[in-house]
Amino acid sequence: MKIGREEHSATAISGSNAETIVVRGHDLVGDLIGRISFTDHVWLLVAGTLPSEAQRRVLDSTLVAIAEHGLVPSVVASRMTLAAAPEALQGAVAAGILGCGSVILGASADAGKLFDEILLERRNESADVDGAVREVVGRYRAVKRPIPGYGHPLHKGYDPRARRLIEVAREAGVAGAYVEIAEAVDRLLPDLTGRPLKMNVSGAIPAVLLDAGYPLLALKGVPILARTASLIGHLLEEQTRPVGFLMANAGAAAIHYDGAAPKGFTADEN
Amino acid sequence: MKIGREEHSATAISGSNAETIVVRGHDLVGDLIGRISFTDHVWLLVAGTLPSEAQRRVLDSTLVAIAEHGLVPSVVASRMTLAAAPEALQGAVAAGILGCGSVILGASADAGKLFDEILLERRNESADVDGAVREVVGRYRAVKRPIPGYGHPLHKGYDPRARRLIEVAREAGVAGAYVEIAEAVDRLLPDLTGRPLKMNVSGAIPAVLLDAGYPLLALKGVPILARTASLIGHLLEEQTRPVGFLMANAGAAAIHYDGAAPKGFTADEN
Amino acid sequence: MKIGREEHSATAISGSNAETIVVRGHDLVGDLIGRISFTDHVWLLVAGTLPSEAQRRVLDSTLVAIAEHGLVPSVVASRMTLAAAPEALQGAVAAGILGCGSVILGASADAGKLFDEILLERRNESADVDGAVREVVGRYRAVKRPIPGYGHPLHKGYDPRARRLIEVAREAGVAGAYVEIAEAVDRLLPDLTGRPLKMNVSGAIPAVLLDAGYPLLALKGVPILARTASLIGHLLEEQTRPVGFLMANAGAAAIHYDGAAPKGFTADEN
Amino acid sequence: MKIGREEHSATAISGSNAETIVVRGHDLVGDLIGRISFTDHVWLLVAGTLPSEAQRRVLDSTLVAIAEHGLVPSVVASRMTLAAAPEALQGAVAAGILGCGSVILGASADAGKLFDEILLERRNESADVDGAVREVVGRYRAVKRPIPGYGHPLHKGYDPRARRLIEVAREAGVAGAYVEIAEAVDRLLPDLTGRPLKMNVSGAIPAVLLDAGYPLLALKGVPILARTASLIGHLLEEQTRPVGFLMANAGAAAIHYDGAAPKGFTADEN
Repeated sequence: MKIGREEHSATAISGSNAETIVVRGHDLVGDLIGRISFTDHVWLLVAGTLPSEAQRRVLDSTLVAIAEHGLVPSVVASRMTLAAAPEALQGAVAAGILGCGSVILGASADAGKLFDEILLERRNESADVDGAVREVVGRYRAVKRPIPGYGHPLHKGYDPRARRLIEVAREAGVAGAYVEIAEAVDRLLPDLTGRPLKMNVSGAIPAVLLDAGYPLLALKGVPILARTASLIGHLLEEQTRPVGFLMANAGAAAIHYDGAAPKGFTADEN
Repeated sequence: MKIGREEHSATAISGSNAETIVVRGHDLVGDLIGRISFTDHVWLLVAGTLPSEAQRRVLDSTLVAIAEHGLVPSVVASRMTLAAAPEALQGAVAAGILGCGSVILGASADAGKLFDEILLERRNESADVDGAVREVVGRYRAVKRPIPGYGHPLHKGYDPRARRLIEVAREAGVAGAYVEIAEAVDRLLPDLTGRPLKMNVSGAIPAVLLDAGYPLLALKGVPILARTASLIGHLLEEQTRPVGFLMANAGAAAIHYDGAAPKGFTADEN
Repeated sequence: MKIGREEHSATAISGSNAETIVVRGHDLVGDLIGRISFTDHVWLLVAGTLPSEAQRRVLDSTLVAIAEHGLVPSVVASRMTLAAAPEALQGAVAAGILGCGSVILGASADAGKLFDEILLERRNESADVDGAVREVVGRYRAVKRPIPGYGHPLHKGYDPRARRLIEVAREAGVAGAYVEIAEAVDRLLPDLTGRPLKMNVSGAIPAVLLDAGYPLLALKGVPILARTASLIGHLLEEQTRPVGFLMANAGAAAIHYDGAAPKGFTADEN
Repeated sequence: MKIGREEHSATAISGSNAETIVVRGHDLVGDLIGRISFTDHVWLLVAGTLPSEAQRRVLDSTLVAIAEHGLVPSVVASRMTLAAAPEALQGAVAAGILGCGSVILGASADAGKLFDEILLERRNESADVDGAVREVVGRYRAVKRPIPGYGHPLHKGYDPRARRLIEVAREAGVAGAYVEIAEAVDRLLPDLTGRPLKMNVSGAIPAVLLDAGYPLLALKGVPILARTASLIGHLLEEQTRPVGFLMANAGAAAIHYDGAAPKGFTADEN
């Protein structure tokens, strides 16, 4: 049974024989191991060429910025999964990554698409940046689509990581059309929405990466990779100072049962 | 209902307030973003302190070495998962990570435990390294436990990544007791097992990382993090040149049905 | 840090104390275990009340119909994951479930939404069923949205499972507005699309379940639950007659490397 | 590259052609859909033959018993994953299943292995059941291995589900050597361990299923399948009355930061 289309039958990422492993055209052993950083390698795997120093620095800064922010939901889910299934660290990492979805860490990729739409609008309509922002944000709001990359539950005034990332992009000399757009959205959004939403880390990441030449379709991978590093740190701590079950119990205890019950039954607190 | 023990109720990885995010004692925005590499950050998250230049170089080299080796099973599973569920990139990454188990990428952590057992044997019994290797490998073989970190289906003569990693550790000046043990196992194993098994990348990774001071319990995270980078590259390619269904179909076609069947029924090839 | 909205703080599914476990208002031990079937329990958990005999029969028939169809991509991914990580059966099941996405097993839920839209169109516009089908299918095709639940790569003439499910719904006396719509789509689609697409199992499942009173939002769970049963059977077979690595190798072997390479390098076949 | 062994190349579960789908020798459409229950189908997929009425009743009772027990850790993790990634229900189900590990739902399979070891001891040594229990439990305790299937954090006196399952097995006429062993462990364990541990649901499930002829290697699948049904119910509720983020926030708030910090920094509560 042939499921799906079968138009392609090749990969351009890696080939090997008994002596040599080639990654994106480079000899892995002779040219890469011990000579390039992991961040260089990530860029090579994703974009197909080794990064410039500026590109590497921008990618490094985004990965450092988004990796760790304490006991966020994906970390909580991952640590309770390790508590329940300590035989499979990979399962706990996977459970954490599964929470990198549209509402939380997916915002980077969605904000990248928003900025790209604004850039297209700007080019197609010869609009100035503010006009293009108003037009595209208006379209989002007309269908009640949330504006990704702005607003944060803790960092309400502004997200210090976002500011710093823009600063790094300027220092590295890559800030361009996408940063300009992201800053225009930041400036106009309070007025357009009536709410004091400021650029958050998930808005700054696509702005600086797209300006640096990182592929739009691979944006979603950046927070996933960064979060994997955080999960590995948390899962090491979970092995030595476990809090997974305590967090699960505390989570359950915040919820009460309000369904039907046999006569005389009283539920314990969860 | 209280499930599990609740001895601990603290984390030492990250704390924050509206202005500041602290990671392992450092101000994330002021001290880390734009100043350190992602590899520095990984070391910081896992080990609790920033790495020396030598430590960073060794960790970089292991992550680069293990990230990518073509269409290995975890990549195959991940790409067919994205083909079936393109709405959830995080699900395809998770499916790939779930294959980082004891048989494949888990060998790094298992080899780390083997080397640690040999080191302990050596210290407790004041044995020389060869004696300690013979003793511990003998124990493994007595219970038919495989020796992790040696032998490779493709790189039969030797795994060029393993040699290169040991070389990098020497260049960086961190090679010590663990590398000595890993090389002793490499030398003695053909004689002890009667099979021409040579150190593979999963044997070299724990040797150089443990000598560099990386925590034993976090070894399993290294191939998982590296493979996540590879998966992101492959999933970008899967979005533009999909082969997931073709691989699933080819995999199924290699298997035939040999169960019972109603009279006259002939199964198509899978 | 408070992430997300916190409007609700209750569950109506289950409460318990040291003596009694209540599920959807019933005493689990006194009223359910040993008295009802698992399918009754599934309906109870999802819909909140015990099913009638007809409802149970329809749910049983859909779960039986969709559970097993050989080495489909989710099964292939799951079996290769167990081969790589035999210590974690739950990880292999999870990897299989992650392939129950929009392209493959998600079609049931999408077809349910399509039928619901057609029903709404019919009611709002007092249209006859054919008119409502033409209108809604026309809307889908205007935005190049695929029509879920019709067409099958192997069962091209018709999907025998779909016919049988409709027959069971008629026998059970539940066939109603949704089955009428599903059959109208089946009749009109070849004409509307110019392609000989016939109702498949993922079209029949929502038709019969929605007519039986099963909740629309829980449709996606039906193929996931059924496939879990299939995965458990396959993972037992994988433990005793492993084919996971053979399938991964055969999948990889169908793909060649077409990227750049150092001079003189020839890739082995994958 | 050939990874792993390739001894087998066949499956006995399902084969098909354009007209017919065969499952374990039966015509899926003609013989199974609409005629057998989902529980029959599960038994057929796993054990290879259709169950007797007694076998089906025992399997039904175990699936009903273990499916739902409120906001246990796997449900908590699953609901917070859906809150973060609502686009992928399959990802939230997978996250929940990943928590079905050795500490929580894996106890059924481990207790099955314990009982099997006791049965073997009994046969090999012509021991009476109490002697065999003392011997095998003694071996577990000598290496500080926990005794799976006994003790419960909420149901301390006894687990009412366990009693009921044993009762159902007696009613169905299948209770035999495994139930006898499970009850002997229940009787002797307080004396052997000095702790008032009573048989829990994960002890009763393997006892009644193994007596009914269910395969030992497939035991782990039973709680996974049952829990999948529970997850589907909870994820429907999460779509209509979301509590995932509230539980994640409450879990995090139970933990404080005790790591190093820059001078003057005070962490907010999590």
